[in-house]
Amino acid sequence: MISRTEAKRLRFCETYGIPSHAERLAEVYADADWVFLCVGDHDIPTVAKELAVYRSPHMRFVHCSGSAPLAALDTLGERTAVLYPMQIFTVGSLPAAFRAIPLFVEGKGEMEQEITAMAHLLSDRVQVLDSQARLRLHLGAVFVCNFPNYLYRLAEELVPGVGLTAYQHLIEATVEKALAQGPAHSQTGPAVRGDTATLYQHLEILQDTPKKRELYWLMSELIREAKEGEMENAES
Amino acid sequence: MISRTEAKRLRFCETYGIPSHAERLAEVYADADWVFLCVGDHDIPTVAKELAVYRSPHMRFVHCSGSAPLAALDTLGERTAVLYPMQIFTVGSLPAAFRAIPLFVEGKGEMEQEITAMAHLLSDRVQVLDSQARLRLHLGAVFVCNFPNYLYRLAEELVPGVGLTAYQHLIEATVEKALAQGPAHSQTGPAVRGDTATLYQHLEILQDTPKKRELYWLMSELIREAKEGEMENAES
Repeated sequence: MISRTEAKRLRFCETYGIPSHAERLAEVYADADWVFLCVGDHDIPTVAKELAVYRSPHMRFVHCSGSAPLAALDTLGERTAVLYPMQIFTVGSLPAAFRAIPLFVEGKGEMEQEITAMAHLLSDRVQVLDSQARLRLHLGAVFVCNFPNYLYRLAEELVPGVGLTAYQHLIEATVEKALAQGPAHSQTGPAVRGDTATLYQHLEILQDTPKKRELYWLMSELIREAKEGEMENAES
Repeated sequence: MISRTEAKRLRFCETYGIPSHAERLAEVYADADWVFLCVGDHDIPTVAKELAVYRSPHMRFVHCSGSAPLAALDTLGERTAVLYPMQIFTVGSLPAAFRAIPLFVEGKGEMEQEITAMAHLLSDRVQVLDSQARLRLHLGAVFVCNFPNYLYRLAEELVPGVGLTAYQHLIEATVEKALAQGPAHSQTGPAVRGDTATLYQHLEILQDTPKKRELYWLMSELIREAKEGEMENAES
């Protein structure tokens, strides 16, 4: 365990009970078989370049980013791979069931088999995916995680004195239904119903916040178009 | 139980074990104390008008819409109210814990107390809310239910061969975190980090679908602005 920030490293090692750690890249064990670069996406090439000085020929190098390509590790030679877990992590806590978290892996040449085997030690859900598809998957994560979180915030701000917990059962039922039926079949609401009267009532509420109004309109358009696309497919 | 559609009525009464039912409004029991109009939002005034012919002075009338005002029942006199449940319902199944579903109520004059008491028979979470605030709450439901469902669909379509279940743990963790910490504190992703490099990578993927590209851009802008608003508040 190596970190540029002493305080972070100590907290991390304490939380997860990791015994060995160091402050400098020079202290990477010469006999380490696997080296994981768990740094910010855009720091990967820099850290890889620094690590290249200390690497031994048997070492394997792995990054865990969804958006960085495998090639970000190119300065480290041929034994490179990616292991991208589909989950958000909070410092100080571990996801309840790590073996259920999907891990998406990619490896250079023979490393593909090695990283797949390594990933199977951690999870029951391992899938090989190249850098381009992984970036699309990463974009999907923004759609299902970052954007809904912002929409939850919008809803919370709309009705002072009610709070997000009022929506808890609705949110949970939405997720459950989308996963069970597929989101194309679980779409509800005024946009998919073509209920323009309600749509205009909603737009009126947002009239003083033009960007949010635009967001509502654009989302409703996209939902309507997706439905029309289905109907055309059904007809042809 | 009265319905304009015979097949729907039969299925409904069978599923939920409702013994008495009728096909015509004329068959409303003259001694009924409560009459619930569970019809489409925009049918409420029409059905109310038809019902007015058969009403007895002691009858109470309730609609269950989030977007229709209490006034939609005006033709039915003074004993009118609204009971809006914050949940999506699927024909043929009942939500697991109805008593946990928030019910938002409103009543004309003395009816406010009556509908509150009635709602408490069904749920532990009853809150009085006027028609204007209920419409805002209804808009919030679109934000937390309809729009995320569409975003799940977008994500699913992005990476053929992966499927929405790959995101299941991420989606569940997102919901859990937003409810526990509040969505303003649980916002993650490139937009809130100011990670423009990743942002442009994502926009490139969407370049052939301009409306989806616009959606991504607009959402990212709104997330960034919300964060800047917080920082300004913290500074002042």
